[in-house]
Amino acid sequence: MSIKFSDGKGLSKAQLEEGKEFTPKFDENGLVSAIAQDYKSGEILMLAHMNEQALSLTLETGEVHYFSRSRQNIWKKGEISGEVQKLIEMRVDCDQDAILLKVKQLGVGAACHTGRKSCFFRLVEINGEETSLKLTGDEQLFDPKDKY
Amino acid sequence: MSIKFSDGKGLSKAQLEEGKEFTPKFDENGLVSAIAQDYKSGEILMLAHMNEQALSLTLETGEVHYFSRSRQNIWKKGEISGEVQKLIEMRVDCDQDAILLKVKQLGVGAACHTGRKSCFFRLVEINGEETSLKLTGDEQLFDPKDKY
Repeated sequence: MSIKFSDGKGLSKAQLEEGKEFTPKFDENGLVSAIAQDYKSGEILMLAHMNEQALSLTLETGEVHYFSRSRQNIWKKGEISGEVQKLIEMRVDCDQDAILLKVKQLGVGAACHTGRKSCFFRLVEINGEETSLKLTGDEQLFDPKDKY
Repeated sequence: MSIKFSDGKGLSKAQLEEGKEFTPKFDENGLVSAIAQDYKSGEILMLAHMNEQALSLTLETGEVHYFSRSRQNIWKKGEISGEVQKLIEMRVDCDQDAILLKVKQLGVGAACHTGRKSCFFRLVEINGEETSLKLTGDEQLFDPKDKY
């Protein structure tokens, strides 16, 4: 089984933006952005990218797959770390170039490769023209040295 | 006043990923992805992009600015629609190529140009190898015809 997606050609702007046809708009690299959000707490876990195959595999298996831009391959989330993401709900935005994944984070509950629940564990602070980062204090649920 | 950002050259992977220096990683088009999330409800409002100037203006003014890829210019959110986003908190992810904006959505509370609170107002459904979209039923808080 392999899900194919329509390219939306021939649809009006209104049909694309408010209609019922799913026509994901892959960019020049064949990717859409995908936000993973904890389905219960609403916390944003990570932002990554999907190509057509990753999107198809995610829908078919109910487990989230991304496309790794650095490694240039399909990446089943949690394949190495055990931190699998179970898909609870998928949404698409108005212009269909971004995907929202509501997920149940399995494993120890750490979406980030640093061992933290979320990749967004640092606050941007500003002091005049200077910026700096401040750790939110999210604990490390695993030690990356043990996983990778 | 204009905030400049370091390019992170000379920093180790550990320093980039867990350190205190803000070194946003702009892509080949000079952009980072930015997720806007309602600071109270946790609802994801939209995903857009920022170039260096948009990021700088957002930090300086406390009001969210994006870079419009379709129009190729700086876009102060709400400039035309009145749907300004007040920045409550900014976060960056581990590899510093994605920004999380916790915002207070002003105006009538509609981040989406279709008049809805969130751009993610459609669910992706799957039936065998067929996909379709289903409206969540989010109401339109304004009529786009009156705004644009």
